Amino acid sequence: MRLSRYFLPILKETPKEADIVSHRLMLRTGMIRQEAAGIYAWLPLGYKVLKKVEQVVREEQNRAGAIEVLMPTIQSADLWRESGRYDDYGKEMLRIKDRHERDMLFGPTNEEMITEIFRASVRSYRDLPLNLYHIQWKFRDEVRPRFGVMRSREFLMKDAYSFDLDQAGARVSYNKMFVAYLRTFARLGLKAIPMAADSGPIGGDMSHEFIILAKTGESEVFCDKELLDLPIPGEDTDFEADLSPIVSRWLESYAATDEKHDAARFEAEVPADRRISARGIEVGHIFYFGTKYSAPMKAVVAGPDGSENPVHMGSYGIGPTRLVAAIIEASHDDAGIIWPESVAPFDVGLINLKSGDAATDAACEDLYAKLTGAGRDVLYDDTGERAGSKFATAELIGLPWQLIVGPKGLAAGEVELKNRATGERRSLSADSAVSKLAG
Amino acid sequence: MRLSRYFLPILKETPKEADIVSHRLMLRTGMIRQEAAGIYAWLPLGYKVLKKVEQVVREEQNRAGAIEVLMPTIQSADLWRESGRYDDYGKEMLRIKDRHERDMLFGPTNEEMITEIFRASVRSYRDLPLNLYHIQWKFRDEVRPRFGVMRSREFLMKDAYSFDLDQAGARVSYNKMFVAYLRTFARLGLKAIPMAADSGPIGGDMSHEFIILAKTGESEVFCDKELLDLPIPGEDTDFEADLSPIVSRWLESYAATDEKHDAARFEAEVPADRRISARGIEVGHIFYFGTKYSAPMKAVVAGPDGSENPVHMGSYGIGPTRLVAAIIEASHDDAGIIWPESVAPFDVGLINLKSGDAATDAACEDLYAKLTGAGRDVLYDDTGERAGSKFATAELIGLPWQLIVGPKGLAAGEVELKNRATGERRSLSADSAVSKLAG
Repeated sequence: MRLSRYFLPILKETPKEADIVSHRLMLRTGMIRQEAAGIYAWLPLGYKVLKKVEQVVREEQNRAGAIEVLMPTIQSADLWRESGRYDDYGKEMLRIKDRHERDMLFGPTNEEMITEIFRASVRSYRDLPLNLYHIQWKFRDEVRPRFGVMRSREFLMKDAYSFDLDQAGARVSYNKMFVAYLRTFARLGLKAIPMAADSGPIGGDMSHEFIILAKTGESEVFCDKELLDLPIPGEDTDFEADLSPIVSRWLESYAATDEKHDAARFEAEVPADRRISARGIEVGHIFYFGTKYSAPMKAVVAGPDGSENPVHMGSYGIGPTRLVAAIIEASHDDAGIIWPESVAPFDVGLINLKSGDAATDAACEDLYAKLTGAGRDVLYDDTGERAGSKFATAELIGLPWQLIVGPKGLAAGEVELKNRATGERRSLSADSAVSKLAG
Repeated sequence: MRLSRYFLPILKETPKEADIVSHRLMLRTGMIRQEAAGIYAWLPLGYKVLKKVEQVVREEQNRAGAIEVLMPTIQSADLWRESGRYDDYGKEMLRIKDRHERDMLFGPTNEEMITEIFRASVRSYRDLPLNLYHIQWKFRDEVRPRFGVMRSREFLMKDAYSFDLDQAGARVSYNKMFVAYLRTFARLGLKAIPMAADSGPIGGDMSHEFIILAKTGESEVFCDKELLDLPIPGEDTDFEADLSPIVSRWLESYAATDEKHDAARFEAEVPADRRISARGIEVGHIFYFGTKYSAPMKAVVAGPDGSENPVHMGSYGIGPTRLVAAIIEASHDDAGIIWPESVAPFDVGLINLKSGDAATDAACEDLYAKLTGAGRDVLYDDTGERAGSKFATAELIGLPWQLIVGPKGLAAGEVELKNRATGERRSLSADSAVSKLAG
């Protein structure tokens, strides 16, 4: 993409309304634009990142055997009356009357609807286990939306729902999502630590939040440093095998949110030099809730013995919009964003230091064609801006690599390649740069 | 995907509520499920098709130089008050009050919001032309939603908006979308014919509907048979070149909707044996509307002479959800759907005629592994259903190829390959089948 043809509305000044760094950087880089309180449009640069995050989430859900559907945003209130939540859910639910005065709502979550879809066709244990997920926009009418897309009213959510005959089956499904989440966050360049979370009236040990450490985190968390270096299950993980050894290893070392923290246990179990006390951002939540919805909504399945019982369910949420902000919180410096390669909006920023100079233009065009031809996604800064301004933009938007081309370097047969994350720069021939980037 | 692990809730009976064939087939094959009047959940089979349609639309928008964004579903009423449409738009607009009693709405379209995004950062002709599009769920509160996703209340829409300095520039942008639409529909296996449409108070000749011929179409259309065989612009089309010769050729031959039909001209211009009078379904609409929104909303750009003028805009819509139904209307038979390869939910249906038979199972597993390994998306019917039922399901869901494996054939060293569209069957070795399908 040529920057001169792109739509990248960089703000010169830091927006005053933004309290946290991800919000500031997303506004400054023109990734998003606020259209109403807590409601954002995703502009080209931001939308590319969001789609990449979404795709990583999708691939790992599929790998774990979950099946993608798409439920609508607008739901009938009647469905929520069946579960009893229509009255219980407070003002966060956006309630709507349609032209026929029917009560509708913009879905804040989908337990009711997925239970309805399930009960309409599944009758037997033979069709289990089943895990259906979707990636859809949801709405929660927060009183004071803030922190940009970290806590917005309209937000994208991947929510998966598992269905099993009994609790033992539900644990198998739970473990699959546990491992899928470990893989998902790692692929996004994040160190996410599963921490026991409140399981409400259901009780038990099947409720975990996945938390990343970031200075600007919303809550305090405590964990064993060992957890930061635990190996992530590989691509070849067999999701049909017993995953409990993997899950157990992650739950063995101490990790707790403020709510669940036990200072005495922390000090007893974790040597002083491994105790981490930090701020954390919740990026995922997995939760077994048994028959909470299936019982009132009569989603029953027949077991091998013919008896009919409410299906056991769990839900598994990740917010891709919030993740984009979380990645920035975890990966930036004073100059701007530092994108992990897996979600960078472009692979390479090609910087023409003297647009209009025939030789420099020709060299850039050649590099652009070669890199693009090799499947690299390149943002070519072909504008008439000054070099200093181009550098600042490149640092700000944080593409993994900057390829810098100017008349002086070309005279010496060289271009410069800069790694955004390490700051490392090297001079090399144009051909070597192509090999390095396209290799 | 193994059918035993998939979620494919086929209905045994034809649903009574469905009036048209696409709606019937989408319900029967478990592609969609109605969740409220005119509001559908997309189940796994349907969602795969929808994503493929969406991706073809996206690729052709990108090829034509349009840039993807994503605007939110919920909009502020204030924006619509600026254009004057908040009061004009009737009951089709889903109006909402949030918890602070602010007037919001579920966007039925996005002219206002995209104009707001544009005016916030673009000031000069140097940043033009610009075409921004998004693929987003919209809501129109139809009095009587019907025909399934052909006319639903919540629907997916690709809407692009072009911005140019003047009308001449707008025509260039218009032509790009015109050609992109020709390519899009052709890739989806549809013969879509551009027909002059009402341009309202703007006047002029820049408003076209793209219409496909289908017996169940909503309106009557008239055209010259020649149009069905005009060549579609190739992948190598240069969108920076003058596209008016291509556009002109398509507009030269007679084609008109009922509204615009001129029987005398039709008979004068088109020889009797080339006159087509048929039913049509609108699958796209492109439209130049000048400064209708930019003038009241003060989206102005400075021209080369420094004078500031409202930007000239056009909008370009395609409904992917409606397209899924339109493709089925255009491509089915008594047994079920016949998917074009470009949007088929799977490439191949692998049918095990005797699940549980060791040799047949082994042969199927081997074929499944080889085809999947070669990048083919295979739905493997490994269930315990009878052969007749498996055949019926395969015909119904309409995958392009059926690969049929049974003990008798295997004893003779053969499997059977059936083309869903032509009905052609041939016996061949398993290896030849793999070569044929994976080639």
